[in-house]
Amino acid sequence: MTVGYEQIGLFIYWTGVAAVAVNAVTGVLEAGRKQADLVGATFAALAAALGGGTVRDLLLDRTVFWVADQNYILVALGATLAAFFAGRVRRVPPRLFLVPDAIGLALFTIVGTQIGVVAGAPWLVASLLGVITGVVGGVLRDVLCNEVPLVFGGELYATAALAGALLYLGLQAVGVAELPAAGAGMVAVLALRLAAIRWDIRLPKLRAE
Amino acid sequence: MTVGYEQIGLFIYWTGVAAVAVNAVTGVLEAGRKQADLVGATFAALAAALGGGTVRDLLLDRTVFWVADQNYILVALGATLAAFFAGRVRRVPPRLFLVPDAIGLALFTIVGTQIGVVAGAPWLVASLLGVITGVVGGVLRDVLCNEVPLVFGGELYATAALAGALLYLGLQAVGVAELPAAGAGMVAVLALRLAAIRWDIRLPKLRAE
Amino acid sequence: MTVGYEQIGLFIYWTGVAAVAVNAVTGVLEAGRKQADLVGATFAALAAALGGGTVRDLLLDRTVFWVADQNYILVALGATLAAFFAGRVRRVPPRLFLVPDAIGLALFTIVGTQIGVVAGAPWLVASLLGVITGVVGGVLRDVLCNEVPLVFGGELYATAALAGALLYLGLQAVGVAELPAAGAGMVAVLALRLAAIRWDIRLPKLRAE
Repeated sequence: MTVGYEQIGLFIYWTGVAAVAVNAVTGVLEAGRKQADLVGATFAALAAALGGGTVRDLLLDRTVFWVADQNYILVALGATLAAFFAGRVRRVPPRLFLVPDAIGLALFTIVGTQIGVVAGAPWLVASLLGVITGVVGGVLRDVLCNEVPLVFGGELYATAALAGALLYLGLQAVGVAELPAAGAGMVAVLALRLAAIRWDIRLPKLRAE
Repeated sequence: MTVGYEQIGLFIYWTGVAAVAVNAVTGVLEAGRKQADLVGATFAALAAALGGGTVRDLLLDRTVFWVADQNYILVALGATLAAFFAGRVRRVPPRLFLVPDAIGLALFTIVGTQIGVVAGAPWLVASLLGVITGVVGGVLRDVLCNEVPLVFGGELYATAALAGALLYLGLQAVGVAELPAAGAGMVAVLALRLAAIRWDIRLPKLRAE
Repeated sequence: MTVGYEQIGLFIYWTGVAAVAVNAVTGVLEAGRKQADLVGATFAALAAALGGGTVRDLLLDRTVFWVADQNYILVALGATLAAFFAGRVRRVPPRLFLVPDAIGLALFTIVGTQIGVVAGAPWLVASLLGVITGVVGGVLRDVLCNEVPLVFGGELYATAALAGALLYLGLQAVGVAELPAAGAGMVAVLALRLAAIRWDIRLPKLRAE
């Protein structure tokens, strides 16, 4: 990845590392509710941590990020083992799991959008790649754990990610610098998603048939 | 994509656009039966419209068609919104949904086979890529909507697609021009699939265990 | 694929062919239990036979093996038809299905790890690619047949594959030649998996809420 500004490259890198760790923890928490063993939990954690970025990189024909740099796998495995053996998984209330999931969604969505922009994708494709990066890991985790994916759960989810990605792109279009724009986008995703969980905000449903 | 004949390139392009629009509508119709909201319906529509071609392009190591040309996304979103707000989804009888699905299957199968041939794949690979292009979008849509995929529903489906792809390749092999061969292939897929629905045509089952 | 030693290239090739055939048979056996027709069985067989290697090749940005060489499709289809029409599927006890599945897991895991090494992946990525090659075909087959994937079934599965891949890499690291190291890795996967089935060996579970 050749980014013009060293600083932005580092920002994307470390945000990606943080998102991988957070999402791995959500995989362990959900697998724990299913009484999975260590391998099952590791599978769910790796799917959550690496799934979204993998699909993004395949779509962009980039080298898949964790094939290029195995530190991502080590971070995901480290977070998995830490969460697994912390012993606290037992005492985590199920709804608390939604908070790290929302953080992972916010981080991955903006990082994915950034990488799409860096790769030269037009804005609509870049924002869609951001949503895919944010959403797919959680969908894989939930499918593996035989849960209805949160993205179909009713409260704003992909909508929150899309809004944050568009805010990030819009702020840049009107001249805001990269880092504040990215920060605003992440805060927007996180705030919308947490508000949607807290006050059960939903889009209107299709009434059909 | 470098096609020798401008006309064939245009034919593939516009057939692909039509297939994307038709398949997006099937996604909205099916999501409507599940009382999805606008985002859920959009997800199902994008999966149905873009899924098959995406897998084909990844397998061929081509640039994914909607990453290269965001018009496909706009067409899919336009068809989604039109179907969503037409208000008629309420009154569409469930089985009518099978007709646009069959049209999408016919269009995508032949376009996918053509693109495989253009990319230099041998006939068996090209026909398999055609079936994948035709079938995968509907499978993703049905899995997201938690339905048994139509391709496993019993009546001819992948078989109809394969027969049409082979007819298209066979007609070309005996010297029929590109456009009539493609037309004949599409008509064959559509006719076989509609006949299979109408008269419940099935292949014999494995009786095991 | 350019391998230094002709012999190793041939070994990888024919092991891959054997793994494709064995896994195609597992697809037919499982589809038979579901009363699938010939097309459904073929789908399950192709998913089992080609799925793992396809994901590996996409992740490595290699040409997908069955797109590059359609002999793999012919082998998979031949094994499918042979198994389908052998008529014996009726009399195969369900648990016997676990033995070819274990053989396919052993062959695919080591071939996948070898291809990762040849492609220049570091050891952790190569072993993970081996596990993916071994496991993903069976997961796709089980998902298509609406079964809980064996990898989540409780007895050692991905763990057996990972242990064999690491043994293979470790033996090479201490100077053992390619072919004996690969053989030892395959035997280790097969022995661990069969022992796990026979004596119900499991990893400890997460007990969480």
